Amino acid sequence: MALLAVGSVALDSLQTPFGVREDVLGGSATYFSTAASFFAPVRVVAVVGEDFPQVHVDFLRGRGVDVSGLERRAGRTFRWSGRYEFDLNQAHTLDTQLNVFADFRPELPEAFRDSSHVFLGNIDPELQLRVLDQVRAPRIVAADTMNFWISSKRATLLEVLRRVDLLFVNDAEARQLAGEHNIVKAARAILAFGPRAVVVKRGEYGALFFSGTEVFASSAYPLAELFDPTGAGDSFAGGFMGYLARSGSLEIPAMRRAIVVGSVLASYAVERFSLDRLRDLGPHEIRARYAEFRRLAHFDDLDVDVLPVAPRP
Amino acid sequence: MALLAVGSVALDSLQTPFGVREDVLGGSATYFSTAASFFAPVRVVAVVGEDFPQVHVDFLRGRGVDVSGLERRAGRTFRWSGRYEFDLNQAHTLDTQLNVFADFRPELPEAFRDSSHVFLGNIDPELQLRVLDQVRAPRIVAADTMNFWISSKRATLLEVLRRVDLLFVNDAEARQLAGEHNIVKAARAILAFGPRAVVVKRGEYGALFFSGTEVFASSAYPLAELFDPTGAGDSFAGGFMGYLARSGSLEIPAMRRAIVVGSVLASYAVERFSLDRLRDLGPHEIRARYAEFRRLAHFDDLDVDVLPVAPRP
Repeated sequence: MALLAVGSVALDSLQTPFGVREDVLGGSATYFSTAASFFAPVRVVAVVGEDFPQVHVDFLRGRGVDVSGLERRAGRTFRWSGRYEFDLNQAHTLDTQLNVFADFRPELPEAFRDSSHVFLGNIDPELQLRVLDQVRAPRIVAADTMNFWISSKRATLLEVLRRVDLLFVNDAEARQLAGEHNIVKAARAILAFGPRAVVVKRGEYGALFFSGTEVFASSAYPLAELFDPTGAGDSFAGGFMGYLARSGSLEIPAMRRAIVVGSVLASYAVERFSLDRLRDLGPHEIRARYAEFRRLAHFDDLDVDVLPVAPRP
Repeated sequence: MALLAVGSVALDSLQTPFGVREDVLGGSATYFSTAASFFAPVRVVAVVGEDFPQVHVDFLRGRGVDVSGLERRAGRTFRWSGRYEFDLNQAHTLDTQLNVFADFRPELPEAFRDSSHVFLGNIDPELQLRVLDQVRAPRIVAADTMNFWISSKRATLLEVLRRVDLLFVNDAEARQLAGEHNIVKAARAILAFGPRAVVVKRGEYGALFFSGTEVFASSAYPLAELFDPTGAGDSFAGGFMGYLARSGSLEIPAMRRAIVVGSVLASYAVERFSLDRLRDLGPHEIRARYAEFRRLAHFDDLDVDVLPVAPRP
């Protein structure tokens, strides 16, 4: 099993009620790869500029990430600047400088074309199609997207959806894509576009998984300390796809575990700024929080009868 | 075990994207009693006006509700009028006519004073204290409240909290009451006010239960058809307290089951207007949806190792 991630590697500047950070490591492929690397070796395809600190490349390599698809080009690295209020569910973009990312044309190293598990991060759906044309026979392709592509490149995005197995979206994206407010109906509409599964990420409320008639609901871990939600969705996707690549199964029980592994990684990612928490995360912590998710969600069968006829006083 | 409910019995006028209804049966004690009546006989203390249709009283009696504490007074019944947009999580109050409810002074029939399980619906905390003075030795008292009392009668509400075992609140109420945005910290702050458990209701996102170091997260049932969220919280509380009264246990496993039973009743309540869905609900449907909640939340133990050291490519 080999896991490929295509997306952004960025330098983020963040403002939250808990502090500010300038030019810290970020990007969808970065969070994804780091989270996934706890379960499987990851191959990353992305682009950075001349100003991108080598220490970040070394960090990814140290996590077992194959960076031979990480292109370094003349120019500055993609920069995103965002602000969060106390409602950390909502990011307010202050500034986006695409820089070298504007001309990103993902080119897979020959050795990456046999990847069995593929994650198309939130990039132009035209580029997502370009990646799909370069992989040979993946067992599962998952894609992420966002409101910008849903409104500006809908036709291309629908073509992507016909060719991927799974879509990650948040509530608002699901509603926008489906043109339907009810989230169950929206998920069904998205499945009708092509993918055989859709994961609706709901931030602090957890995630919903839909596939055929299967529905799985995972609560998010209730965190007392939550500092920086940047990258939560990509960490979720990384844990999810990393687990699937490691497990080798694509059956529903594996999908359910993958959702929880994704939730575990996302819950850690947000505990500190940038990738700081994922950097020092230990395998025992992942196992421990997975067990906590089991306790969090556990309840027994109903042990009393429901009254067949209302009792009369 | 005997379950007492004190709250409102009302006539509601509702506007939703799916239709309008005028002067339909509503009120916290009504939803609570009906939901609870699937598990235990309920005693209700409330007040209605001369205009309150006898057919509604007969309905409650038919559900096994002891209506000897339902006072009928000169004047009009409490009326609430509300509107929901597509985001059904948020009720917009159009009009509130307290009518006879303005002078409600709950007076427990002597036979109600030995109630083992007590629900204080969302009424003036002074009236909640008045009820507490009239019950002898309840095994568990649960209370509901709302933003209006949190801001206008905070001191009295805190006195209530010192005397109840469990508080039902929604996210916003928890934050307002605790003066803390993080929901885990808010719940802990509320526990410090006195109750040994707090249930945070999150509408379509489910519910969180906190008691000591115990946390339980229940997802809401993802509904494709959702017509009228009025009474969802009281139906939840009714299922919860009804189950506890039936079970006889107040241990954590029972509390977890109670949360799910509450979620089941709330999920049905919102499928149609007013109490229409609860009216024709059968015991088998409650058991079936409880089983669906089990499937919805189920996932297995982690079946792979987490990589101890990142693999090198």
